[in-house]
Amino acid sequence: MKKVDYMAVAEKVIAQLKEGAFLTVKAGEATNTMTIGWALLGYAWQKPVLMVLVRTSRHTYGFIEKAVDFTVTVPTTDMRDALMFCGTKSGRNVDKYKACNLELAKAKKVMSPIIKTPAICFECKILLKTPMDPKCLDKECQGLYPAKDYHTLYFGEIVECYETE
Amino acid sequence: MKKVDYMAVAEKVIAQLKEGAFLTVKAGEATNTMTIGWALLGYAWQKPVLMVLVRTSRHTYGFIEKAVDFTVTVPTTDMRDALMFCGTKSGRNVDKYKACNLELAKAKKVMSPIIKTPAICFECKILLKTPMDPKCLDKECQGLYPAKDYHTLYFGEIVECYETE
Repeated sequence: MKKVDYMAVAEKVIAQLKEGAFLTVKAGEATNTMTIGWALLGYAWQKPVLMVLVRTSRHTYGFIEKAVDFTVTVPTTDMRDALMFCGTKSGRNVDKYKACNLELAKAKKVMSPIIKTPAICFECKILLKTPMDPKCLDKECQGLYPAKDYHTLYFGEIVECYETE
Repeated sequence: MKKVDYMAVAEKVIAQLKEGAFLTVKAGEATNTMTIGWALLGYAWQKPVLMVLVRTSRHTYGFIEKAVDFTVTVPTTDMRDALMFCGTKSGRNVDKYKACNLELAKAKKVMSPIIKTPAICFECKILLKTPMDPKCLDKECQGLYPAKDYHTLYFGEIVECYETE
């Protein structure tokens, strides 16, 4: 495990994100993982910040609304099949970890675990949860919400960032 | 002027942002510039995205609420004095461009101009304007808002990103 500067890996992370990363959230005793393809990275509220978006229709939404933290595992090897599965199936109906042979590992500073796979890992403490206001959303982007299940934005302080092998 | 990949400059941009960058917004015929120290960069709504935050108390707020685009000029030389001035004085009372000897230059694809200085420049078309919901804001961050003038979040599609000399 190698500690890395989140800024130094920003390029790699943003590029890989488009191919998919695992968002893992623990609420109470239960843990859920979904695939994300979007995220923002930067600096706000005097802290390093990672922002993820979760639609209200998602099983993960119920988890992250209750949670105080989340992790993002950005795989550095080919995890296409697991990413596809976790992005299209719901934890409501299936055990994703079993189906994809994914193992969870304890995080260093937060309650939500990471996915055990070679990856760049972000451990984030939630600073702000805020629903997006669809009134001021670009017309072109409106097309991404035919079911009106808009995203809620979760801003997490990056409390740990490291690379696993 | 050199076209650059926004991901490749992410590290440099996030690092410099903490020292300050210029956010410039044109609304109607008027243009205003303020200093920002916070921003997020990444990928969302299937587009490269830069997010900036503006407090409702700011002169810029009236501009960006009416605007369709903004620019962020991240200086690559020492602009500390101008950044300090534009971050502490309001365009309501003073002509910042005159006072700081700042020149505006036409942007390539958006109406808001850029600041004419050696810099990494982002031209952004606004995709989403959404106020932050202070109900789910971390207690520690609440301290940044003694006057309750919370930020509104502006997500811009990066339509141009280049370096000027």
